[in-house]
Amino acid sequence: MDLYYLDDLVPGQRFGGSARIRVEEQRSKTFASEFDPQPFHMDEDAARASIFRGLAASGWHTAAMTMRLLVDSEFKPAGGIVGAGFDELRWPLPVRPGDELRVESEVLEVRPSKSRPEQGLVKLRTTTLNQGEQVVQVSVGNLVVPRRLER
Amino acid sequence: MDLYYLDDLVPGQRFGGSARIRVEEQRSKTFASEFDPQPFHMDEDAARASIFRGLAASGWHTAAMTMRLLVDSEFKPAGGIVGAGFDELRWPLPVRPGDELRVESEVLEVRPSKSRPEQGLVKLRTTTLNQGEQVVQVSVGNLVVPRRLER
Repeated sequence: MDLYYLDDLVPGQRFGGSARIRVEEQRSKTFASEFDPQPFHMDEDAARASIFRGLAASGWHTAAMTMRLLVDSEFKPAGGIVGAGFDELRWPLPVRPGDELRVESEVLEVRPSKSRPEQGLVKLRTTTLNQGEQVVQVSVGNLVVPRRLER
Repeated sequence: MDLYYLDDLVPGQRFGGSARIRVEEQRSKTFASEFDPQPFHMDEDAARASIFRGLAASGWHTAAMTMRLLVDSEFKPAGGIVGAGFDELRWPLPVRPGDELRVESEVLEVRPSKSRPEQGLVKLRTTTLNQGEQVVQVSVGNLVVPRRLER
């Protein structure tokens, strides 16, 4: 398993070939009942009358599934995937029960830390796509990644 | 129950008095094992040696709990809480097992839509605090909110 240090990452580097997660209707509803209990995430009829025009997964469920796909992807920073925060997170299209999601990610920036020479920040864009290659989530996150220190 | 339309919301308006959620260690670990299976979210010893210096909830678990607190709060837009996306999402401090979280939110901007007169966007900052009044998450989201239409 290749672990990436800050020194190994460059803008433009891409990580694809992720696994896929199938969005199970029941799981989507139980996630919503615990964390986002709104009718359009839990009830078919209410969802049809809503802005989503049908059952849609909670955006937070999509974000969580995206994280799982990213953790299982080829992008493996040495210290794990540790997000300091996000500059952007959006859901251009709803995620539906039965969708199959995968992710692609791309390094946008690599910045060694001035105050902490042992680490730096990597800005990573992660795109979540459904089985029709439609983008259902875009996130741009800042990750803390260790440097490869001389010994 | 008071439902808010776009016309009822103004910048500076605040919503407090949220419920509290206690972060259960077991739930935090099962959330991580499903969505963010990294050692520092699941194993005490690995977590102590990590950047978190102890078990920490996945940021996505914190985000999901925050959504639950927001849905249950006094902020009730007429069409539900529908996020188009976020301009910012960050986790200044780790969330620990046993923490008790609550949220506060503030309207930052209210913008009627030019192309869709029946709705608009509300920019809402939501702050998640622990029992020590420390900020553990800040998000700035853009929500789709219906207008109060004349009949």
